[in-house]
This record gives sequence, structure tokens and C-alpha cells, in this order.
Amino acid sequence: MGKTEPRTLPGFMELLPSEQILFDDMKQKIEKSYQKFGFLPIDTPIIEYAEVLLAKAGGETEKQIYRFEKGDTDLALRFDLTVPLAKYVAKNYGNLSFPFRRYQIGKVYRGERTQKGRFREFYQCDIDVIGDGELDLINDAELPSVIYTIFKNLGFNNFTIRVNNRKILNGLFEEIGQEEKSVEVLRIIDKIDKIGKEAVIEELEKIEVSKDSIKKIIDFIEIEGTSEEKIEKLKKLEIKNETFITVNELEFVIKNMGTFGIPKENYKVDLTIARGLDYYTGTVYETFLNEYRELGSVCSGGRYENLAEYYTDKKLPGVGVSIGLTRLFYKLNELNLIKAKKKSISDVLIIPMIEDLTVPIEIASELRKSDIKTEIYLNNKKLKAKFKYADKLEIPYVVVIGEDEIEENKYKLKDMKTGNEQLVDISQMIKILKQ
Amino acid sequence: MGKTEPRTLPGFMELLPSEQILFDDMKQKIEKSYQKFGFLPIDTPIIEYAEVLLAKAGGETEKQIYRFEKGDTDLALRFDLTVPLAKYVAKNYGNLSFPFRRYQIGKVYRGERTQKGRFREFYQCDIDVIGDGELDLINDAELPSVIYTIFKNLGFNNFTIRVNNRKILNGLFEEIGQEEKSVEVLRIIDKIDKIGKEAVIEELEKIEVSKDSIKKIIDFIEIEGTSEEKIEKLKKLEIKNETFITVNELEFVIKNMGTFGIPKENYKVDLTIARGLDYYTGTVYETFLNEYRELGSVCSGGRYENLAEYYTDKKLPGVGVSIGLTRLFYKLNELNLIKAKKKSISDVLIIPMIEDLTVPIEIASELRKSDIKTEIYLNNKKLKAKFKYADKLEIPYVVVIGEDEIEENKYKLKDMKTGNEQLVDISQMIKILKQ
Repeated sequence: MGKTEPRTLPGFMELLPSEQILFDDMKQKIEKSYQKFGFLPIDTPIIEYAEVLLAKAGGETEKQIYRFEKGDTDLALRFDLTVPLAKYVAKNYGNLSFPFRRYQIGKVYRGERTQKGRFREFYQCDIDVIGDGELDLINDAELPSVIYTIFKNLGFNNFTIRVNNRKILNGLFEEIGQEEKSVEVLRIIDKIDKIGKEAVIEELEKIEVSKDSIKKIIDFIEIEGTSEEKIEKLKKLEIKNETFITVNELEFVIKNMGTFGIPKENYKVDLTIARGLDYYTGTVYETFLNEYRELGSVCSGGRYENLAEYYTDKKLPGVGVSIGLTRLFYKLNELNLIKAKKKSISDVLIIPMIEDLTVPIEIASELRKSDIKTEIYLNNKKLKAKFKYADKLEIPYVVVIGEDEIEENKYKLKDMKTGNEQLVDISQMIKILKQ
Repeated sequence: MGKTEPRTLPGFMELLPSEQILFDDMKQKIEKSYQKFGFLPIDTPIIEYAEVLLAKAGGETEKQIYRFEKGDTDLALRFDLTVPLAKYVAKNYGNLSFPFRRYQIGKVYRGERTQKGRFREFYQCDIDVIGDGELDLINDAELPSVIYTIFKNLGFNNFTIRVNNRKILNGLFEEIGQEEKSVEVLRIIDKIDKIGKEAVIEELEKIEVSKDSIKKIIDFIEIEGTSEEKIEKLKKLEIKNETFITVNELEFVIKNMGTFGIPKENYKVDLTIARGLDYYTGTVYETFLNEYRELGSVCSGGRYENLAEYYTDKKLPGVGVSIGLTRLFYKLNELNLIKAKKKSISDVLIIPMIEDLTVPIEIASELRKSDIKTEIYLNNKKLKAKFKYADKLEIPYVVVIGEDEIEENKYKLKDMKTGNEQLVDISQMIKILKQ
């Protein structure tokens, strides 16, 4: 028979079990942190009506969409978790309690040009707080504390949550008469970390921003100092009202991030952050692992005025952040920051050397009752092959069970790392394995 | 602005948070049970090359596939987790340890005719054990013990795992000279629970099975008694060799299911079970909640000779089972067997009545450190509105924090169900909330 080559699509991550265990572990840590802050789970379909999913989308996003027909229905795969959230809140408005705090972890799809480290299918891990009509600014300070908790849980210390406020930039543009080009200008500024100052100036010149305005923009985004100093300098710039109010917003958020327990070294004001997406209207965040800036922002988000304006007249302001887990995992793995520490999920392998499995199975059940992940080797192989299996999978402990052991009710528990063997009864076995 | 109606596609489950919490809880219980038996996680893409996914498929399955082009690539969405497993094992053969025990929980897609309780997007929760070249029959007895563990964990007692062996049926067909129609005949027999004996006879007549053969088939599938009696009766039927060997297989599996700790009342031989799918070649399982037979089988599977023959020359026999979680949840919900016990994920809501949030946040952090899911109410509303939020979400406890409480370092912890209030310090609070 002719065989089909078992290929996986480029841009689609498919891990070996040893990597998958680590990926799932990260995913679970993120989920547990979200839950600890009282966020509620939702799970929306991956396929939606194209009309619903694309109610807003445009430009670059739309080109990347997986869109197709099934029967007469025009369908699309979700490209983020924010649009499905907007649909969900608009649809279920009457059944939700506000502020609505939800998390969602799931796969999204973008048909990007494939290149190393870029994925077409990837996990996003989102939280958002949605207000009904209004949402207090203090929420903008709580979300970074969730981010902080997560990255600490993931084992990082040297990371910075960078915070800005879009209105400050917009106010500046008004001041210099560049409101109409503001989206374009923001998109360019946003790249300063990647392409550098000179390239930003060049790009701004290309879209015909005057030399004078460019200078003001660059002076502005080059304001230096601690978060507090930056805010002071901003206040001293004599710009018009709206901007001034927004500096106060940023000041409030920054101050309260401290109250929320984030250490000073893990956050700062960064006036260059704009976020390319055009729906953020206030606070914006990006998070960087400082030793690995090349990863780009590993957790981003911000405040938006109106989540679901394309679906409902209700005004639903919100603030949210998202972790792109697939890319984060890939990059950490590539940098060798994740060691494949576990090739197996089992804590112990039971190797029966007798035909009657009653006792080995009873022991396995006992161990499982004590929350010990237990596997029985069930193929009829030589002892050596059975040990090889445990070796290859790096299962930490092995128990061999034969006639003698059963008679004496004592079992040899072998630590596969050290080679140490101990003769133990079941309760001792449980005690050792529980560590 | 014209609004787009925020619709979800028919056949796609989208739950409110209170239901989602329960769904996730079931999903997690299943996953934890799989892990406890040492199954390894994998996660394959939802989109695959159509050529790869459809290497085998045909007939009804193919019609239901979501298939589309992106650029020049012919793509399809996975319709089960078995084909992706076959691809995965063939592709990663050299990097896996055999027997390869894997679990996968994920969404699959079938464009079925929409009707109540039928889903186009649904979760499957699969485990399989794959051997390299061979796989001992004892594995066929272990898998049902995993099923047993799961349904017990889900809170069920009155369920039966029904077991049969496809070869017995095939042997019978050979005996009566109906091998060529065996797939069709099996498909018809498989429906006896749904459509009844008379309808089965009618359908068999329609495909021109002789009256004599129909009688033998019906006599056979009507063999009565306990599992052991059925096996004895089968042995006494004087049919040819292959069949006899298989009766021994069935006997071995049934006997060892007992050894694996499944109580007698939770399993039995059922000679009518064939499984419609045509790749099962030995043991087959179906699981029924006896009080709710209308649900159909809630967990099915079986033994197959060769998992990945479309992708590789390696012979990879396996045995697996699958739980269709979305349908199970839907049906249990519809039957009111799942009560929405939790509308919130939070154990406690902290209501600050002061501007400075330092203490409320410190308390929240303390509680979270003790694994208590803690939410702070952060919108500037009247006390009544804040309590209404806790009420509506049925958050079990509320702590109101004002000047006095902070001064005395004692806080009123209110049990929202009983209305009881206790004045406690933080360590007492943790103790109460930990229960």
C-alpha cells in the first residue's frame, strides 16, 4: 500500500511528550493564577460566522484570517480571544455580573507568513475585566499584579512590566497638530525598540511629519528617569488639558501597582509603548524578560473604551492582558531556558514478575489513592527491557514485584537516579513517593 | 452605527461561566485520572493537511469534514483524535517509548446535520496504549479500569462497561457465510439498543441476509446470562477455530477487569456491541449510565490491529477509549443531573470601604498565598451594590474592610449563605476559608 507522509503543517507546534508536559505545566500555572484572582472561565468556539468575527477587523488582520465556506455559511477561525469575548459579552449581557472578570485560554489562528518562531496556530491566555458603562481606573493597576504573579510562578525574576497611557501620546499629537496621522505615528514609534531611533525618524519623515514635530515626538519619548521622574517631567511639559488629565491617570496606575504588591524593579513607565493595535484608548502594557529582550513583549494589553461596539449599544469599557504562550514556550525552549526535566508523567513504574497481577494492581491502586501517578508495565518482556523503558522515560522510581516480595509483603523500591534500593512495605513506599 | 448580531453557530457549545466551571471541573477530573495511570499528554494541531487527515477516511466521515484551502494548501479540521495520533506516532516513532501511553483532550469537528444534542465542535478525551509490533492483551483489561475510575470520580455509581470482541462476531459471519456483508451487518446489529430487534431483522432482510442466517445472528446476540455464563455458552457453540480463540480472549479480558479492581456490577459481556467504526479488530467497549440509557454510550473504544498503516510500515497495534465530553455534559445538564453549584470561582470577595487599598490588597495576597481564590471589589459603588455582586455570583464569603477593621486588625467575615458574621483576624480567616 502507498503510504501518506505523516506531516504536520508548518507554523503549527506539535511537541514531544517530554516538551508537552512542560508546556502544560506552564499553561496550568497561568490558569491557576487567573483563578486565584477570581477570574471566571469561558470557552468560545474556534469557528464563528465570518460576519461576526470580522465585524470590526480590517487591514493586516483580515488578510491572515482562515476563512471558508461550509454549505452556504461563511465561516472564519478566531484570530484572537478579544473579538469572541466581545461577542460573548454582547450576547450574554443579561446573564453576566459586572464587572465581568473572565479568563480564556485557547488556540487562535493567523495565516502569517511562516518563519522561525512564528506560529499560525497558537495559544493565547487572556484575562479581561469588563465594566457595565464604566470601569474604575484601579482595575488598570490590578491586572499587572496578576502578570507579576504569573511570571514569578513561572520562575522569572528579572522582568519588567512597562506601562504607558495612549492618551498622553494622543494629547501630544493634538498639540503638534498630527492627530490625523496619529495611528500611523504610533505604529512607527512602537517599533523604536526593534528598529532604533534613526529608523523611526526616517519612517516619520516618509509619512511627512515635519522636522519640528519629529523633534517634539522624539524629545517626548526620550524623557528619561524613574517612573516618578518621568511623570514629573510630563507634568512640567506645558501641554493642553486632556493630556494633563491623562498624566494623572498614569500616575494613579503606577502608584497603585506598588500598592498591589509589585516590587519597584518589576515595573516602570515607558513612554514609547503604544501597542500597534488601534483599539487601546488608555493604559497600555508590555512585559519584557530583561535578559531576553529578543523575545519581544511576552504579555501585553491595555484599556479600551468600548469592547463590543460592533454588536451592541451598551457601553462596555474594559482592561485586559494576553500571554502568547506558544511563542513564549518556543522561545524559552530555543534559548534552553526550559530543560526537559520530565519525560514521564508517572512517579513510579510497577514491574510485575508474576502472572497473577492481583497484588501489583492492588499496590498500584493504593498508590493512586495517595495521589501518586502510577503505571504498571503490562507487556510480557524480559526484566531488562522493562527497566530500559523506565530508564528511557526517566521514571523516578521502579518497584519489581515477584513471588518473594508478595510473600514477605516487602517490596524493593528502586530510585532510578541514584540506583539505591530500599526494602519497604506499602505505607513506607507511599511516604517515600509522596516527597 | 449598524450592529452585527452577536450570534454563535448552531452546533457549537458556548456556556455561561457557571456552566463552564462545571464543564472544566469534569474535564479536569478526566485529565487527572488519565495522568494517575501514567498516560502522557500530547496536543496536535486542529488543522492538518487534508491529504494526511483523510488518508484513510471515507464514507460518512468524509462528508462531515471541514475542508478548505488557504493559499494553495488543501486543509482539513481534525474530526477525531485517533487519526492525529496515528500521524503523530508514525512521525515521531523514533522518539517515543513503547508501549506508548498517551492521552489527548481537545476539540474535534464534524459538520453533522444540526439537531438538539448534536455538536459540530466537541471535546474528545482519549487514551490509547500503542505497542511496537505487539501489545499484550492485558492492556485491554486495564483501560476499562481507567474508565471505571473516571466515572466514579464524576460521581456516578450505576454504570456498566459493556465488553465484546469483534472477532467473535466476525467468526460467526464466516460460519454462516456472511463475511462480505460483515461491516454492514455489524453496523445494523450495533443499533439494536436504539431501534429494537424487529427493526434490526428488517434491516438485515433489506440487505438480503437469508432468514436462516438472521436467525443464527439473533440467537447469537440474544445469548443471556452473566458474563461468565455467556462465555460458557459461546464456548459450547460449535463454531470454527478462530472464533474459539477469541472467546478465550474475551474471557481473559473479562477476568482481568476484575483483577483491575472493577466491581462486578460495573461491567459485563454484551455480544451486541460491535462499534460502527470499521477499524476495531478485537475487544470493543461501550459504557452506559444505566439510569440514563438514552444518553447512549458515554465512553467507547476498543482494540485495533494497526494504528498507522496509512503512514508507516511499522505495525502498531493499540487499544483506546474516548469520552465525548461535550455531549455527555450537555445531556447531563439537560437531565438536570448537573446542578450549577458554582457561579463564581472566588472563595471570597473583599470589599474595601476605604480609599487606600494597601491593607485590603495585603489581605488578598495573604489569602491567595494560602490557595484561597480571592477577589477584590474594585468599582466605586455603594456597599449595597457590592453585596449584590457577591450575591448574584454566589461568592461564599465576603469581608468588608473599613477604617475600624484596619485599626483593630479584626475583620468581619460574612458567610453569604447563612448570613453569619464572625470577627476574625487573618489567620482565623484563612482557617475558615480553607475548609
